[in-house]
Amino acid sequence: MGSQDQLNVCLIGSGGVGTIAAVVLEKAGTKVTAVLRSKYAVVSEKGWDIESIDHGNVKGWKPTRVVSTVTDAATEDGKPIKYDFVVVSMKQLPDLYSIVEIIRPVITPSHTAIVLIQNGIDIELPIIEAFPTNPLMSSVSIIGSKTVGDNSIVQIGTDNSTIGPHFHECGGRSREEQLATTKEFIRLYNLGMKDAPKKPVCTLTEDMPVARWHKVLWNGTFNTICAINRMDVGQVCRSDGRDRLLIPMMKEIWNTARAAGVDLPESAIQSQAFRVSDDSTFRPSMLIDVDYGRPMELEVILGSVLKRAEQTSTPAPITKTIYELLKMRKWEMEQAALVEKGNL
Amino acid sequence: MGSQDQLNVCLIGSGGVGTIAAVVLEKAGTKVTAVLRSKYAVVSEKGWDIESIDHGNVKGWKPTRVVSTVTDAATEDGKPIKYDFVVVSMKQLPDLYSIVEIIRPVITPSHTAIVLIQNGIDIELPIIEAFPTNPLMSSVSIIGSKTVGDNSIVQIGTDNSTIGPHFHECGGRSREEQLATTKEFIRLYNLGMKDAPKKPVCTLTEDMPVARWHKVLWNGTFNTICAINRMDVGQVCRSDGRDRLLIPMMKEIWNTARAAGVDLPESAIQSQAFRVSDDSTFRPSMLIDVDYGRPMELEVILGSVLKRAEQTSTPAPITKTIYELLKMRKWEMEQAALVEKGNL
Repeated sequence: MGSQDQLNVCLIGSGGVGTIAAVVLEKAGTKVTAVLRSKYAVVSEKGWDIESIDHGNVKGWKPTRVVSTVTDAATEDGKPIKYDFVVVSMKQLPDLYSIVEIIRPVITPSHTAIVLIQNGIDIELPIIEAFPTNPLMSSVSIIGSKTVGDNSIVQIGTDNSTIGPHFHECGGRSREEQLATTKEFIRLYNLGMKDAPKKPVCTLTEDMPVARWHKVLWNGTFNTICAINRMDVGQVCRSDGRDRLLIPMMKEIWNTARAAGVDLPESAIQSQAFRVSDDSTFRPSMLIDVDYGRPMELEVILGSVLKRAEQTSTPAPITKTIYELLKMRKWEMEQAALVEKGNL
Repeated sequence: MGSQDQLNVCLIGSGGVGTIAAVVLEKAGTKVTAVLRSKYAVVSEKGWDIESIDHGNVKGWKPTRVVSTVTDAATEDGKPIKYDFVVVSMKQLPDLYSIVEIIRPVITPSHTAIVLIQNGIDIELPIIEAFPTNPLMSSVSIIGSKTVGDNSIVQIGTDNSTIGPHFHECGGRSREEQLATTKEFIRLYNLGMKDAPKKPVCTLTEDMPVARWHKVLWNGTFNTICAINRMDVGQVCRSDGRDRLLIPMMKEIWNTARAAGVDLPESAIQSQAFRVSDDSTFRPSMLIDVDYGRPMELEVILGSVLKRAEQTSTPAPITKTIYELLKMRKWEMEQAALVEKGNL
């Protein structure tokens, strides 16, 4: 596929999750081109300082190539690059930018496989519409990894993920061919993690919508309610709120999934409601976004659930209320940011 | 009624609202005994320093008598006092204390009229049950008054209130007699405010439940949602939240009132939703409680609405969600207070 049989990977979104993926994929022998925006200057000069439970401590690590724009990533030495995989690990903020437009320059029609390591529901729909001939897969990942300071990555949780294809017309590829592309990516990923001490795994699922809705049972409830009430996961678990609010809200999301044709098992609600231990001090991503006044992934986590609920006439009043509260908070955070920039 | 024809008033709850009521009632010629708990030592020594839009600046003001317990208030010079009015302006926190048990020592059956200057719905029910022979009225008050520091009161808003009787069996008193007692209290209150420059008024309503549900349309929505999102009233108004969340929630409360037999006018929702100007920086009481980690009046403001909704099978899912979020926040605030006291 790539030049000299080395696979070409373009990574877009080099935060805590994406940079670890770059480490893994380079260990697997692929050539990774990382697109960095705000951190381009510091990382192209100094590389990343990585402390990782899976990969140990590495100073000044860089992927093969670091560029500052997707347009730069699209060519090398004046020649277009045909990427085998484009891995997207940016935040999903459809009201701020379009993933489709961002990745377009590095997608070779009928060739490049697109890998979304991102949160949310129905995130595959705009990609399939824009790139109908490209294989598409997504990953639901549990990895305690984040950027610290300018160019450091700290990963405290083992990299476990579930990846599956989003089957579509795909330029006439059969279901088996689409599955094979996903399996190839999983093989690479596990190859890159084979020396890690804690046995991280990247697992295949053939029903990705189930995996994504399963995750949104947790993300749509714990993540959002922790953010609204500024409580950590353990506090939410220890309060009555889990029984009185989160589980009823999970039922709305579960019903919506069913109505949308995604058959979550009956046990999913209990398993997600009691997945994290009551003494956890974990602060989910949306709570951290509130802490730092950063944009939240509200639309793909709850907005998409509500769209499906409306399409299928599934009652979801708790979900709607939580969504509207966070929309208000988002408005307030945006206003505060404008004031800070002197624009208001 | 009182000795030498002077009316005896016992005031329980000497915060921003209660202390201004004490000033007004003393100006009207009544003898006010104020029960102060935490502030007894400082106020009995130094009095209150008052800055009031209605009553000007007064240093070291005290009502006729200041006591530290309701039991002390019940007697003077070893003789029991027969109070004509007991005015209650404590916070309504039924899960922390019982107003009935607190005021019992100063209630003379068949004689004392009870005046509740408090928030919430159905706050009259336990009083009527405990004191079936006593006249009862309540006040819905708009007054920008608060305590500052140890013994200061700052009142920036004119004292406007609506008072009405809660009609009940009342030891055989007719509706007219109960109304007459309320009118007497209103006469006194307006007498005490007659020299105020900005023409504050205390107005009679003969349908107090309507007035209280009208107020809870605002209190149950703006007050609670400002507290959850830590936004001021103007921010809530300027965000989409007013249309998308607060007005639908007001509809639930309006429907609940109707189902409970309280006929709020159709216009009530619009008038409450647009009562405060969009540039208001007002921080409602519950938001201030969250700011300072103090108990919120959640049960009488939303808990009672939800009880009525359940009794009448009125759907109120938004209200329930807002209530549960604040219950969680309340739990977290209580835990934080225990940690501070070293009990956890």
